[in-house]
Amino acid sequence: MEELIEIGRKAKKASIELASLNTDRKNQVLLQVADLLVKHTPEILEANREDLEHGKEMGLKGAIVDRLTLSEKRVADIAGGLRQIVKLEDPIGEIEQMKKRPNGLLIGKKRVPLGVVGVIYESRPNVTADVAGLCIKTGNVCVLRGGKEAFRSNNSIIRVFHEAIGSYGLNPDMVQLVQDTTRESALAMMKLDDYLDILIPRGGAGLIRTVVQNSTVPVIETGVGNCHIYVDESADPEKAVSIVYNAKTQRPGVCNAAESLLIHEKVTEKLLPAIGKALLEGGVEIRGDETTCRLIPEAVEASEEDWSAEYLDLVISVKVVDSVEAAVAHINRYGTMHSECIVTEHYTSAQYFLDRVDAAAVYVNASTRFTDGFEFGYGAEIGISTQKLHARGPMGLKELTTSKYVIYGNGQIR
Amino acid sequence: MEELIEIGRKAKKASIELASLNTDRKNQVLLQVADLLVKHTPEILEANREDLEHGKEMGLKGAIVDRLTLSEKRVADIAGGLRQIVKLEDPIGEIEQMKKRPNGLLIGKKRVPLGVVGVIYESRPNVTADVAGLCIKTGNVCVLRGGKEAFRSNNSIIRVFHEAIGSYGLNPDMVQLVQDTTRESALAMMKLDDYLDILIPRGGAGLIRTVVQNSTVPVIETGVGNCHIYVDESADPEKAVSIVYNAKTQRPGVCNAAESLLIHEKVTEKLLPAIGKALLEGGVEIRGDETTCRLIPEAVEASEEDWSAEYLDLVISVKVVDSVEAAVAHINRYGTMHSECIVTEHYTSAQYFLDRVDAAAVYVNASTRFTDGFEFGYGAEIGISTQKLHARGPMGLKELTTSKYVIYGNGQIR
Repeated sequence: MEELIEIGRKAKKASIELASLNTDRKNQVLLQVADLLVKHTPEILEANREDLEHGKEMGLKGAIVDRLTLSEKRVADIAGGLRQIVKLEDPIGEIEQMKKRPNGLLIGKKRVPLGVVGVIYESRPNVTADVAGLCIKTGNVCVLRGGKEAFRSNNSIIRVFHEAIGSYGLNPDMVQLVQDTTRESALAMMKLDDYLDILIPRGGAGLIRTVVQNSTVPVIETGVGNCHIYVDESADPEKAVSIVYNAKTQRPGVCNAAESLLIHEKVTEKLLPAIGKALLEGGVEIRGDETTCRLIPEAVEASEEDWSAEYLDLVISVKVVDSVEAAVAHINRYGTMHSECIVTEHYTSAQYFLDRVDAAAVYVNASTRFTDGFEFGYGAEIGISTQKLHARGPMGLKELTTSKYVIYGNGQIR
Repeated sequence: MEELIEIGRKAKKASIELASLNTDRKNQVLLQVADLLVKHTPEILEANREDLEHGKEMGLKGAIVDRLTLSEKRVADIAGGLRQIVKLEDPIGEIEQMKKRPNGLLIGKKRVPLGVVGVIYESRPNVTADVAGLCIKTGNVCVLRGGKEAFRSNNSIIRVFHEAIGSYGLNPDMVQLVQDTTRESALAMMKLDDYLDILIPRGGAGLIRTVVQNSTVPVIETGVGNCHIYVDESADPEKAVSIVYNAKTQRPGVCNAAESLLIHEKVTEKLLPAIGKALLEGGVEIRGDETTCRLIPEAVEASEEDWSAEYLDLVISVKVVDSVEAAVAHINRYGTMHSECIVTEHYTSAQYFLDRVDAAAVYVNASTRFTDGFEFGYGAEIGISTQKLHARGPMGLKELTTSKYVIYGNGQIR
């Protein structure tokens, strides 16, 4: 597809310029973007209003409309996010593990930008600014392909980036938005391995699956979370109730929310009624196995699909298990390697769970809702990786970099 | 494909067992394999002899026959390589960056195995033992799919691994060799993303391209090297001659050998005849631009394809450039991001080259032949990554691992 090849070519070219910008200059650009976003808020909101109108005509509703909607406060928050990125340490240029080899070669591992970062996302226009900001800070060119619902909003944000970049005499191609929002443009982008160094899908499981299946660009899978809380035989009852309640209800629409509760058979009689009561009061639908349905009369019977489901809603599946081993086996079978938690006071069960559960983040006695770049202390995130290559868990600035060996010799040969 | 799904299922299962083995036990298995390889050398050589016979019937010759051939010494070297791996530090289990967050959560990044490592390779049976050894040491199950030429040799080596693994009562599925060596089995392996965590192609550019194009498993590209030596205006003449000669001739068939010489126009008259003389004496065919052909009468004219060629042979392309900037632009255009070198005594040119060349290893005044796990001090390598994600440059034990966040809480909720 012509548009994408042209974008790729320009991106590759701009990446050389951006890679060698000093931190000061990158920060100046980001602060300028933040100021201009605030200044141009009326135009951005106008563009967003048009998107929303078209969206309503196309029949959009509910959560999608909510994700798409900007307000003065949301734009100010986006600007604030960019000012936060300015404060973060720039990982680029640091040389790690510099060592002198026996033959006198001085070998170090220098942190450098990935190059060109592609992101395919759905309806949230704030992703446009977040990703562009993180990429500028790390010296990466970004090629953004947002959803058609947010087309005008995304373009209004990109115009602000281009104005700020231009005001410093830099190449605006360092931030590019794909103008073609058809399915074909997304597929073409997945084949752009001559130009893109990485492709990150941000959206639902369907989008991610399509990208993994079709991309020849290296992909980072993000954000699908079928997260479990396992309440062990020795769980502290108060912690069990409050962690399950928090992980399920505090923000059910996000990937680190719990979707499934496993509970040890020895404590079902004692704990399940209390946990069920709290969840029901929180408006949660409970889909459980036989024991669960007996102890919580409001529960409905769970089907096999429920164990794999990422509800992203006020629904939870509940299953009784006979051991920590069975809980771990269930999680490794049905989980999505995102965030998993054991509630226990038993030392060996805790260690076993930490060792054996295969996931990006494994918790003892804390809500899975903490799996997040800010909560982990990285200040920002571009997504939460649920794969094992390159990055796992919340991806901050460092995950947008790679390394290059720099070798200082004085004539060494083999 | 049935065989592969069954292999994948067994591999996934074995990976849980292998991931939690202590270093002592993994080392015992590796030492046992080394001993048994030596003990079973006659059977291995017999299997190899059969492979070679069939290969001759199929018309194999030259370098392929050489790579396929085992000898008593080669088997002993393979065993020696495994004993080396035993001596390396086990990266698994280390927890990095463990920090207490303001809310009391203790968060650390634990090094864990990738899980199941797939490798598709061609005719070298030693790869079977090298990869299996590195994977056992790092707690990874490996699924190996070697070339049909080495079928019997590979199986004889795998039998030794299974004997050693079995003698410790462990699950032999931790090392598996795909028995179907058709093209279909390779393609089926590339779609095994439900079971494989990573797929590494080891072989020529064609194999690597096929894997990148077809794999839904995350791939690490390895080993295609169109490496350049740029002789700068200020190069020390002696270093220039010896580095070019060494990088081209010391072992021309490997990926870190130089394939192309760039030379600054101001020093062509002074240096090119001497470099040409050395190369010609080393039996190297020179394919050059106009100036090169004028100064080295034996040179033939280079075509556009020569700038992109990875000869893996005693051939070099030579081009005159008018600046370090032009050299870097040429390398970033035609190179394969493997190993690149500048020969210079000029501080700013050296820094410019180190900063601007986009490659896994960038050298000042040393032969590109040093890009190698052993030379870099890692003791072993599973390949040299020429991509930017996960690993770049020589991949040692650490590159066969990923991380998992472990979080110790005491009831924290959001």
